[in-house]
Amino acid sequence: MAPPLAHGGDLDAARTLFPDAPLPWIDLSTGINPVPYPGPPLEASAFRRLPSSADLAALNAAAAKAYGVADPAGIVAAPGTQILIETLPRLVARGRVAVVGPTYAEHEAAWTRAGHAVTPVADLEAAADVVVVVNPNNPDGRTWAASALLAYAERQAARGGLLVVDEAFADLEAVESLGGHLRPGLVVLRSFGKTYGLAGLRLGFALAESGFAARLAEALGPWAVSGPALAIGRVALADAGWRRDAAILRGADANRLDRMIARAGGRVVGGTRLFRTADFSDGPGLFGRLGAAGIYVRRFAAAPSRLRFGLPADRTEWCRLSRILK
Amino acid sequence: MAPPLAHGGDLDAARTLFPDAPLPWIDLSTGINPVPYPGPPLEASAFRRLPSSADLAALNAAAAKAYGVADPAGIVAAPGTQILIETLPRLVARGRVAVVGPTYAEHEAAWTRAGHAVTPVADLEAAADVVVVVNPNNPDGRTWAASALLAYAERQAARGGLLVVDEAFADLEAVESLGGHLRPGLVVLRSFGKTYGLAGLRLGFALAESGFAARLAEALGPWAVSGPALAIGRVALADAGWRRDAAILRGADANRLDRMIARAGGRVVGGTRLFRTADFSDGPGLFGRLGAAGIYVRRFAAAPSRLRFGLPADRTEWCRLSRILK
Repeated sequence: MAPPLAHGGDLDAARTLFPDAPLPWIDLSTGINPVPYPGPPLEASAFRRLPSSADLAALNAAAAKAYGVADPAGIVAAPGTQILIETLPRLVARGRVAVVGPTYAEHEAAWTRAGHAVTPVADLEAAADVVVVVNPNNPDGRTWAASALLAYAERQAARGGLLVVDEAFADLEAVESLGGHLRPGLVVLRSFGKTYGLAGLRLGFALAESGFAARLAEALGPWAVSGPALAIGRVALADAGWRRDAAILRGADANRLDRMIARAGGRVVGGTRLFRTADFSDGPGLFGRLGAAGIYVRRFAAAPSRLRFGLPADRTEWCRLSRILK
Repeated sequence: MAPPLAHGGDLDAARTLFPDAPLPWIDLSTGINPVPYPGPPLEASAFRRLPSSADLAALNAAAAKAYGVADPAGIVAAPGTQILIETLPRLVARGRVAVVGPTYAEHEAAWTRAGHAVTPVADLEAAADVVVVVNPNNPDGRTWAASALLAYAERQAARGGLLVVDEAFADLEAVESLGGHLRPGLVVLRSFGKTYGLAGLRLGFALAESGFAARLAEALGPWAVSGPALAIGRVALADAGWRRDAAILRGADANRLDRMIARAGGRVVGGTRLFRTADFSDGPGLFGRLGAAGIYVRRFAAAPSRLRFGLPADRTEWCRLSRILK
């Protein structure tokens, strides 16, 4: 077994690195919205009874509307996007896979684990059986135009290949989703927990033409999504107003964070409205100063000067961050 | 794609069959404990933050203790047992699979979907690459002695094969679990939601020697289990007193249900403390009378005289059932 990949979001690692840091920890190591979707209150039955097919149909209908998918048969709900990233490679014949990066490391890891030959590539040019691109990309925020991705998907479909577009961070961005352009050879991934600040709920979606969507849903089996996720997801996905407000508010946060990073001598290389990635002359030094102050950010083994910052949640967190980024 | 299997627990089907039934429906179509584990109250952070590796380690330690597994490295937590049933067949080289039955239909379906050649068999005698047995069996409650299963697991391991023992209903029964006897070639499945009456939470486990457990955990990826499931599971699994009481109370319920079934002319063929299965001279007629009274039980396409009854939840439900089973 390969060693586990480093990820943000695991404060245990921060506690080990910085045992004397002041508490509480400020976890800026993820790109999860720090202002979660409020409510709805959960009924006890959401925990107790086996989710029904009507519950799932209601969630999928809300997701179809939110993601611009014409037919809810193109929606596959899962307990988080990660399990879709794991499952996809096991449904596709082993072949050559190109992952456009550097990007979220679990794509390459999952296709490799399932026995595919994976090559990291710099852009969509590669000819491979499967091409994976994250739009907008994590951690650098790079985007691809829908037209370019669709043209590429056509070429992939023509050669019997697949294009996987991970839109994990697309909800609050200006990027055009491919949800409204599903076709054979194209799979789109959407994350719920990041946008709605409910990463512990475990909810994510694949969007695909209905035949492939059915295969993916079958691989997860019935009842893959929990009762709480069905209840909350259905309401939150239907709330376009909340999503619009969140885009504005988190956009303002992202701008504020950029200014703070610049003041500290950092050069913002990109990001989304939920995280900012920047290069510093002494990245490891800043990571250490932040950690000693109880602020955990994401670093990258392959790019030591680079740090990724999630958004502070409230005034206290902004103040504590501001005292280090100066 | 194969048509979806019929399952208990989906009241939408009942509503369609019996649109004029009195409300509320009494759902006796599953084997889920009708008296759920009480609490603990969930903190908002369980929904918000990405589950940490420490959260998962705490759950797995509690599961190891509850299931008699010496080393927590032998525990794989999943969002329900169903997804383990789907995932297992994709980790094993395609071969001949024998499912001891009749039993829970998803085993045969999942191995078939993954490309294995599946044969239903009557007992453990078959020589196959993979043998699946449910202990105690659903729906007839048939049990196998641990010694017999372990001897069979040895033979399977010697020929490079696998024995899968689904102990979904073992928690409240007298059957000896194989959790304390893990070895290469043996995988044990345990359900959380049935015993603890929290099927909507989605939590289940595989128990296996640590090498195979690591492969299975890897196939699910990090964060497969939700924050609420980690928080509740950890507390509930450590509560041996509650489990002991539940076995006594549900055992009394099961006896009461048996008497009621006998009074109605049924012959109980078996079951567990969470469901009873019986043959009736006119199974379809009784199914219809129950449905018309707003009581949904499980029927079996292959055995029309057979019905399976879950336990009523409270006095009102017992009374309504008693008015039909007379």
